[in-house]
Amino acid sequence: MEIGVIGGGSIGLLLASLLDRSGHQSTLFVRRKEQMHEINRNGILCLPDHTCSWVRAEQIDDLRQMDLYIVCVKQYDLCSIINQLNTFDGSVIYIQNGMGHIDLLNGATCDQTILLGTCEHGAKRQNERTVTHTGKGKINLSLFRGEQALLQKWTNSLNSDIFPLKPCCDWEVMLIDKLLINIVVNPITAIYQVKNGELLTNQYLHTLAKLVCSEASDALGQDETKQWVRIVNIIETTKENDSSMKEDITNYRKTEIEGILGYVLKRIDQKSSLIHFLYLSIKALEEKKG
Amino acid sequence: MEIGVIGGGSIGLLLASLLDRSGHQSTLFVRRKEQMHEINRNGILCLPDHTCSWVRAEQIDDLRQMDLYIVCVKQYDLCSIINQLNTFDGSVIYIQNGMGHIDLLNGATCDQTILLGTCEHGAKRQNERTVTHTGKGKINLSLFRGEQALLQKWTNSLNSDIFPLKPCCDWEVMLIDKLLINIVVNPITAIYQVKNGELLTNQYLHTLAKLVCSEASDALGQDETKQWVRIVNIIETTKENDSSMKEDITNYRKTEIEGILGYVLKRIDQKSSLIHFLYLSIKALEEKKG
Repeated sequence: MEIGVIGGGSIGLLLASLLDRSGHQSTLFVRRKEQMHEINRNGILCLPDHTCSWVRAEQIDDLRQMDLYIVCVKQYDLCSIINQLNTFDGSVIYIQNGMGHIDLLNGATCDQTILLGTCEHGAKRQNERTVTHTGKGKINLSLFRGEQALLQKWTNSLNSDIFPLKPCCDWEVMLIDKLLINIVVNPITAIYQVKNGELLTNQYLHTLAKLVCSEASDALGQDETKQWVRIVNIIETTKENDSSMKEDITNYRKTEIEGILGYVLKRIDQKSSLIHFLYLSIKALEEKKG
Repeated sequence: MEIGVIGGGSIGLLLASLLDRSGHQSTLFVRRKEQMHEINRNGILCLPDHTCSWVRAEQIDDLRQMDLYIVCVKQYDLCSIINQLNTFDGSVIYIQNGMGHIDLLNGATCDQTILLGTCEHGAKRQNERTVTHTGKGKINLSLFRGEQALLQKWTNSLNSDIFPLKPCCDWEVMLIDKLLINIVVNPITAIYQVKNGELLTNQYLHTLAKLVCSEASDALGQDETKQWVRIVNIIETTKENDSSMKEDITNYRKTEIEGILGYVLKRIDQKSSLIHFLYLSIKALEEKKG
């Protein structure tokens, strides 16, 4: 069975390393030659336990037929990947934040079985080949289009203690659960440059996070109280972590703000919306530092 | 004529220096002994043109009878000063941001003539005795309680090219005009750590500032379009300046957020309010850095 992991960011490096350690061979497709060479020379190093995995790296342009693709690029880099994947017929798992990729996938005409995933691992890329596994989690997996049997097949063959997979019956529920966490945690930690945990310990950020959860739950037709309990739990377990958006702002990188807030922004009255305010704030910080 | 300037912050230092240069003697009352000694030894230095003014400094605790007091302490330090001033009967000019002092003044029972001022000078304190005059402006002056004739008297005797004074007939209009500028400029520049001008050049901060202007104008019964034109004008002329709240956050000092947003917060539905959001943001940054 040939697995292609696409994207050499933190999640791509982590998943390729975890697959290798759980006995699966995968090929990691990356955009840049330097990263490819670095990984082929020295392997993927996973911290904090210094595990080195010898995973073969190739360039995304050389993508070829595989049994399964796990797509780990950021949502805003997805467009060209989807067109490439359309020319093959292996199953594809898309692991992106937000809901922005759904429209792209709906637009694509192909017969592939498409699965959607949400990633609960914490990971931080240190350099071309090194990733820190900042929080052990799992991958949730759900059928978006195609054969239900393939969801079963991939879950059975991939799921292990090292690479935990959990099948979910409703992709929309799965994505919206993840979306809500990202809406509440990512922009606030990025604007105020705080670790996740401060959303609970700083009383004003706590109030602010709760207001954002309320507005987003409302717009997404979710039960606010239930969602808040769930989100508080996740913040507790990731309290020492820096959110990806905080890291992006710190490092003058483009953030995933469009993917994370775009979907919910379409569903609210923008004028007095806190989520619109968060959106403008992150865009302002991107422009300020750009 | 004896004038007491109360408060050794940027505005107190600047006004004492300007009074001296326009031929008026004043005494500067400060809280701390070290600042008093420093000023009595070396005078007040006003940048950028390096004017040194030999102004006598005393401690606020030794406050005594004067013909006129100009109160330049921050609004949150006003409480004890008002009680002290109540025991004398010279006229008092209060130059504070926001509307928070109005309740305090309404509560105080005394026969003093009370004037309110708004300061359009830009000033930044560099050390105990040094202030940079970052933007030449004027003092607007309006009668709050007492004798109209005294407003006339003080305007006539103080107004000069060096110390411009403009009488205003309605203190509420005067304070609300200043309040709206502070609401739009101060919190946003402090949260995103930008100079005033970026509220116009960063397109997202521009949208954000306009939304805040709209919500605040609405709550204060002001014409949004007219106020926005006025505020844009002031931002233009102070585009190179750092707002006082930005400086306070940078230097881990308490901000004037209660005085600036408190009055308008009482007049809006807090749940989906951007001004409430700004309030929580500044409080969060104060707590984060405190």
